[in-house]
Amino acid sequence: MNVWGEKIKLTIFGESHGKGIGVVIDGLPSGFELNLDRVAEQMKRRAPGRNKLSTARAEADEFQILSGFFNGKTTGTPLTAVIFNTDMRSKDYNPELLRPSHADFTALCKYGESRDYRGGGHFSGRITAPLVFAGAVAEQILEEKGIFTSAHIMQVGSVCDKPFDMINTDTELLKELSKMDFPVIDGECAEKMKEEIDKYRCDKNSIGGRVEVCICGVEAGIGSPFFGSVESRLSSMMFSIPAVKGIEFGLGFDFATADGKTANDEFYIEDDVVKTYTNNNAGINGGITNGMPIVFRLALKPTPSIANLQKTVNIDTKENTEIEIKGRHDPCIVHRAAIVAECATAIAMLDMVLDK
Amino acid sequence: MNVWGEKIKLTIFGESHGKGIGVVIDGLPSGFELNLDRVAEQMKRRAPGRNKLSTARAEADEFQILSGFFNGKTTGTPLTAVIFNTDMRSKDYNPELLRPSHADFTALCKYGESRDYRGGGHFSGRITAPLVFAGAVAEQILEEKGIFTSAHIMQVGSVCDKPFDMINTDTELLKELSKMDFPVIDGECAEKMKEEIDKYRCDKNSIGGRVEVCICGVEAGIGSPFFGSVESRLSSMMFSIPAVKGIEFGLGFDFATADGKTANDEFYIEDDVVKTYTNNNAGINGGITNGMPIVFRLALKPTPSIANLQKTVNIDTKENTEIEIKGRHDPCIVHRAAIVAECATAIAMLDMVLDK
Amino acid sequence: MNVWGEKIKLTIFGESHGKGIGVVIDGLPSGFELNLDRVAEQMKRRAPGRNKLSTARAEADEFQILSGFFNGKTTGTPLTAVIFNTDMRSKDYNPELLRPSHADFTALCKYGESRDYRGGGHFSGRITAPLVFAGAVAEQILEEKGIFTSAHIMQVGSVCDKPFDMINTDTELLKELSKMDFPVIDGECAEKMKEEIDKYRCDKNSIGGRVEVCICGVEAGIGSPFFGSVESRLSSMMFSIPAVKGIEFGLGFDFATADGKTANDEFYIEDDVVKTYTNNNAGINGGITNGMPIVFRLALKPTPSIANLQKTVNIDTKENTEIEIKGRHDPCIVHRAAIVAECATAIAMLDMVLDK
Amino acid sequence: MNVWGEKIKLTIFGESHGKGIGVVIDGLPSGFELNLDRVAEQMKRRAPGRNKLSTARAEADEFQILSGFFNGKTTGTPLTAVIFNTDMRSKDYNPELLRPSHADFTALCKYGESRDYRGGGHFSGRITAPLVFAGAVAEQILEEKGIFTSAHIMQVGSVCDKPFDMINTDTELLKELSKMDFPVIDGECAEKMKEEIDKYRCDKNSIGGRVEVCICGVEAGIGSPFFGSVESRLSSMMFSIPAVKGIEFGLGFDFATADGKTANDEFYIEDDVVKTYTNNNAGINGGITNGMPIVFRLALKPTPSIANLQKTVNIDTKENTEIEIKGRHDPCIVHRAAIVAECATAIAMLDMVLDK
Repeated sequence: MNVWGEKIKLTIFGESHGKGIGVVIDGLPSGFELNLDRVAEQMKRRAPGRNKLSTARAEADEFQILSGFFNGKTTGTPLTAVIFNTDMRSKDYNPELLRPSHADFTALCKYGESRDYRGGGHFSGRITAPLVFAGAVAEQILEEKGIFTSAHIMQVGSVCDKPFDMINTDTELLKELSKMDFPVIDGECAEKMKEEIDKYRCDKNSIGGRVEVCICGVEAGIGSPFFGSVESRLSSMMFSIPAVKGIEFGLGFDFATADGKTANDEFYIEDDVVKTYTNNNAGINGGITNGMPIVFRLALKPTPSIANLQKTVNIDTKENTEIEIKGRHDPCIVHRAAIVAECATAIAMLDMVLDK
Repeated sequence: MNVWGEKIKLTIFGESHGKGIGVVIDGLPSGFELNLDRVAEQMKRRAPGRNKLSTARAEADEFQILSGFFNGKTTGTPLTAVIFNTDMRSKDYNPELLRPSHADFTALCKYGESRDYRGGGHFSGRITAPLVFAGAVAEQILEEKGIFTSAHIMQVGSVCDKPFDMINTDTELLKELSKMDFPVIDGECAEKMKEEIDKYRCDKNSIGGRVEVCICGVEAGIGSPFFGSVESRLSSMMFSIPAVKGIEFGLGFDFATADGKTANDEFYIEDDVVKTYTNNNAGINGGITNGMPIVFRLALKPTPSIANLQKTVNIDTKENTEIEIKGRHDPCIVHRAAIVAECATAIAMLDMVLDK
Repeated sequence: MNVWGEKIKLTIFGESHGKGIGVVIDGLPSGFELNLDRVAEQMKRRAPGRNKLSTARAEADEFQILSGFFNGKTTGTPLTAVIFNTDMRSKDYNPELLRPSHADFTALCKYGESRDYRGGGHFSGRITAPLVFAGAVAEQILEEKGIFTSAHIMQVGSVCDKPFDMINTDTELLKELSKMDFPVIDGECAEKMKEEIDKYRCDKNSIGGRVEVCICGVEAGIGSPFFGSVESRLSSMMFSIPAVKGIEFGLGFDFATADGKTANDEFYIEDDVVKTYTNNNAGINGGITNGMPIVFRLALKPTPSIANLQKTVNIDTKENTEIEIKGRHDPCIVHRAAIVAECATAIAMLDMVLDK
Repeated sequence: MNVWGEKIKLTIFGESHGKGIGVVIDGLPSGFELNLDRVAEQMKRRAPGRNKLSTARAEADEFQILSGFFNGKTTGTPLTAVIFNTDMRSKDYNPELLRPSHADFTALCKYGESRDYRGGGHFSGRITAPLVFAGAVAEQILEEKGIFTSAHIMQVGSVCDKPFDMINTDTELLKELSKMDFPVIDGECAEKMKEEIDKYRCDKNSIGGRVEVCICGVEAGIGSPFFGSVESRLSSMMFSIPAVKGIEFGLGFDFATADGKTANDEFYIEDDVVKTYTNNNAGINGGITNGMPIVFRLALKPTPSIANLQKTVNIDTKENTEIEIKGRHDPCIVHRAAIVAECATAIAMLDMVLDK
């Protein structure tokens, strides 16, 4: 199921070591003047090979637009972008050895012997590049409507960033974060996070973290009850990002120990706009936006590709054995996931906004 | 968007104080011998008015099957069940006063003046009764395939239950929990939880909690990469349950401080079956099942309906004011949410299993 | 697949001799003041047992609205209507004898022994009653937008009615037809058609025909290229009506002998509105409306239920045998199909108009 | 809406004079050994510039597979093919002059000034090339299941071919037709048809026709009642092909004068297989296949691009004027449409077969 969306139909495709990866976005408004440089910048933020925190695979991630774009504007027909793969080293992989916590085994179960196992194939984190393309487009369209999406690294191992202000969101901050390669609110924690990552890298290990996403400027009344709830739509998109294993909105899991008196978001009206004093519900009541900022956090697991020796199974011989994963890998995926999450959020939000 | 599913199309409808609520389930296999008594038992577990922990509204929640069922078996055509509303007291509501953390304001923004505001209308927790019906049907079909879904109350306020064993799931335990009105693994915590709830009830307050769900017996290879990931599908269904504000799979948010070495689920083979030593990924790699139990936890917010005085807005006069919510309400929704979560999980899982 | 629509999700359910049949319409605008008497009139037009031209089964087809309707207006949440079955004579049927040109055999192949065979079960023409309900609702909403749908009996056996004027559609005519039980443009042909039908009825036979549908008042720019073409959407809905075996838009099959010079619809502009001199393309170019009336014709096969002796197979004994169909049946379905087609067209058109 | 399918999700994209056109096919079985030469042959049958019957635009229509294909087999993940545009002459077009019976006006209404008008943009017949690619893939997969789809030119202007035998379909004939550039059953009529086309070409005119499609080898029980009927699914795909304006199954519009006695398809059983003596219902009862061949016919309008002077509107100046269409165009589209119809049928049929 590589198609997502109600009003927009987003189709993604590609394998890590195939000819190319890409995306088709159907249902975009026509006549939107797209800034391709800004799209390229977002692509670059996600792209690998830029420093020791990320995989050494050096992909320029240069996209070609094949359709849906004419005279600098969207045409309203499907917008298609393709990224041709270039720097591939397929010999690094032994498909018979199942990499722990990777999709090697499940891909085999689902697709059988014919799966493209090279570099994780279709399950590669590389397939998030098309998501970033689509999200970078969506962000520009949302921006015109006064809606901003942004994300920062909330936590890497033991190091935490300051959380978003869920009441008075600073749009300028969102914009700044949206340009950073290593987006954090509290500049000082960036260095500490990088040290943390480097520590695990040196130990041939990897580390998990959290990403926090904020959407502001969404009018009240977007979304639907039940299956079309803003939480349902956003979570279904977020769990499409490899390594995401949890999502919580507003107070999230802290609701478990919260009581109604303190957790309820009481209303007030100011200049004819209804607002809430607190925002524990993250701007969503009954699945529908109430006009307050939408804030959620994602749990990211550590990169499963580690150079350490691990126990596994040789699926050809059906024997227990060990694996030492070679190749070029990220010791931490959280900062790149933050960018993917920001962009994927923009797509999902645009779909809901257009569906109104 | 009140339709969910790929292979199964689940349609739910109804308002709290309308004539009736119900569900249409399209895409069920034909010829399945349905035990209606067991369905009725599940409905009863969710039904209100049974003790002081739940709302005093006494609804029998008796369903009528209108179609898709003949000679005790499913026909394969849409199965429709309707529950007629009976015990309604509409005069308890003042629609102009927005109840904090309820959908009153967002329903007004989305649907306008013509929304059915009585008892929360379409946003009422009562609309989960059709979900339970559908899930009770799905559970029986899954059971024949050796798949069991169950849920327990993981936490209410400060009281916690023992978690599921994510490696060696006890199917008998799952079956037992699936019959309890107040499902907990550690029997002793039940009383403490009930005391906790009663404490908040006496204080005209409410309390949140967590629910843990387990699915076992799912073969490896179910689900899809990206948008059709098991996490995406399950979370989109779970966030359709009112009050759910977070979901985490396996280690979940504890992944944030976990490193690859310890968090990776190493493989071994035993009797030709590939298993993992740990199950931090909750039986899902790359969005696809690996044959291990699927375990996830939900964050539940405290019931927003509390009898305490709260600040709010009179939307007619556009003035700040206060509200004292009358009517019959649950001081805690967690135990009833556990039953809804179990059933909704069964529907979602059946959809994915049939889609294979 | 009993769910249809993009913006609207239409779910139908029921069996001829089950407890009830019905429809859920999700995605309707809220606050629309629905005239239930007019809906009931449309239901009555389709209802059986009114004269010797139709089956003697006397169903009042009285609907109950269960949800989505409050204070005389749509609420925007799913609108559900149920019609309880009443006048059922199940003993008339022998499921082991396959009725020629009916769905008995294919239902058995798809659903197996457990299908509800009574009265054709889910395949009964009776399941078009919910379509008429939905269409009658859609017609009222479209009318407010200046859009009118109507249909007439174009042909019954050897008797033909006058076709719609595809250029200058008479809205008053459409409205009148929309109230007739036996809708024809040329009043004189009605009697001849009825005589034709009666002739076949007396001969224990049945007769086919054609229905012509017209939609006017649709603005230019509705629909989509390719899969979402107005023709694709309308035809997928029309072939959901039992007995429809063909559809043609505008010149239709006469295009086969037409040349570009004469068949092309040349443009002119008048009072700033672009129009065409001819309307051979039935108001649709490239799958999208151009503002001219949309006109199409349906081929209807004769009712397969005839009292004459027919060759068939006893599927239990696997022997060739004969069948004499008893029960109460229509000698001609065309006049009732016209009403169903008008209503089903309205639903499909509303979905496309709302999707803009 | 450029995505089609239930089990398969087919996404098409591209503009006539953009960088490239293409298709993403999600949901294909994995491990299918695809013969790319045969795919290329089907592409070549549709490709333009091969003789005076077709447009002189010379496109090789060479496709590149970007994803979903590894070691000669499908991987089960999205199969993507791209065709880069090469021979483009954009200066031939004056977008302000609306070409009669083309999508120029409707594209403008739907997409506004920013549409890609060059060569018809997204509405170009050229976008059927990706459909042919997808269909050529589907045909190979169906063939392994013993299912064959084929089409022939039934009529061009006044010249008709012999129809398919709807009872005893000759699979060898289907295979032969599936290789012809100008597929006809009765070889003699080919020359006459070509003369007919040439006559209209010389007159700067164009001519319409009919295409007949046959699918054989489909088991009984495929399809669904109502919205998922085989007729609904096939027609929604067929009307995605530009120029198709009508479709009829089996007896089709001849049902209008048919009576039940003669039109009903009586059953018999032979070697445990249920068959029908006649096949007026084209292998479909109640929307579901009965095992007999599926046969339908399409009405094709004459190519709207004719060199003759035509009346039209200058949409910039809002004045009535005339247009003389230059460029390279087909005097008849029927033979190329036959190939597109065959391929599009294969996709739709595969979707239904896999959905079982």
